[in-house]
Amino acid sequence: MSMIDPQAAIEITGYEWVPDFARGFVRDLRPRWACEEAGIPYRERLANISDKPDWLLATQPWGQVPIMRDGDVTLFESGATLMHLGEMSEVLLPSEPQARGEAISWLFGAFNSVEPAMFEFTNVTVFARDQEWAKLRRPSLEEFVARRLAPLEQRLGGRDWLADRFTIADIAMVTVLRQIGGSKLLAAHPAVEAYVARGMERHAFKQAMADQLAAFDRHGPPEM
Amino acid sequence: MSMIDPQAAIEITGYEWVPDFARGFVRDLRPRWACEEAGIPYRERLANISDKPDWLLATQPWGQVPIMRDGDVTLFESGATLMHLGEMSEVLLPSEPQARGEAISWLFGAFNSVEPAMFEFTNVTVFARDQEWAKLRRPSLEEFVARRLAPLEQRLGGRDWLADRFTIADIAMVTVLRQIGGSKLLAAHPAVEAYVARGMERHAFKQAMADQLAAFDRHGPPEM
Repeated sequence: MSMIDPQAAIEITGYEWVPDFARGFVRDLRPRWACEEAGIPYRERLANISDKPDWLLATQPWGQVPIMRDGDVTLFESGATLMHLGEMSEVLLPSEPQARGEAISWLFGAFNSVEPAMFEFTNVTVFARDQEWAKLRRPSLEEFVARRLAPLEQRLGGRDWLADRFTIADIAMVTVLRQIGGSKLLAAHPAVEAYVARGMERHAFKQAMADQLAAFDRHGPPEM
Repeated sequence: MSMIDPQAAIEITGYEWVPDFARGFVRDLRPRWACEEAGIPYRERLANISDKPDWLLATQPWGQVPIMRDGDVTLFESGATLMHLGEMSEVLLPSEPQARGEAISWLFGAFNSVEPAMFEFTNVTVFARDQEWAKLRRPSLEEFVARRLAPLEQRLGGRDWLADRFTIADIAMVTVLRQIGGSKLLAAHPAVEAYVARGMERHAFKQAMADQLAAFDRHGPPEM
């Protein structure tokens, strides 16, 4: 059952519709997933991606989603929304100090030590793939991505989640890693690939994904 | 006065020595700076960068610094160390919900929306600058960096810090931005450039920097 509830205190901002390549990858997926895991109701606020409204541009410095509101509190950056939800629910972020510290360490690891490599890999293999620089850059970048993945392969061999149990760190890391889903690089790290699949098999992930896609299908592309 | 104290509860891991290009840029600067701002004593634990010890490799997935210990709690990633110190001191992170949410939003913004662009800019202009791909990549990357800086220029016009007052978000953002210090790109954003200079003028920043460099000078380069 979806946690979407128009009367909910928590508001998550996403897009009305996005081009095919971004379907299922827009970052409001992260707080949606966290809400589904913890049973936290939320309402959607959807923006037009090609004509971003003033309230979005005034709140999020780079005009990105998600933004989260909770009463008088407004947050931006998916990492900040995960921290906020984590502090609302032991399911998402343990309160025991070492378990909490471990989850927060991996959370920042996903956003600062792994995702930057994924951003550039997507640039080189998708957006700029026909450009000369991207072709020349690819080998050294693949080496760099592999150096980021190897410690994860070691960590996830024989354990299901980054910390002792599922936390917001896994919501971050699975969504970061699935940006290179289907690549040879991910397949070369079978424990990491299995981890991503395990995350995506969770009911809460599937519900969050279905709800993001349902909004796109409901609105359709803007008229040109 | 430096907050370094061999008997302190908090331990920050750094390096004994680094090559010139990394002097003053190693990321243990961030928690050192936070400790100096808040008057939190810390002890140093220094590792050999060219022969990383097992305890470092076993604790930090990518063999990076800083690691932080506080009693039984071990953390890695400079963002996680800033969160931990922030929760110890109102000086670093306000407890009022909206002020806290704003600081944490900008903290993740520094690590996930700004620093990835700085990483690649340093790659293209320093480490790989003689490679063909880097020369070809530079124009589009400069455009991308400028799009990340423009909203900061707007934000910092007429205000000293990202949130209402100095927080851990500024420790993150100033250290992220000074990676392109001296570049034409930074100079083209005068409010951002002045903000970086303002951060670096703080006594706590200077003390943290002096202490990082003092360790390097004390140890010197490893024998070859």
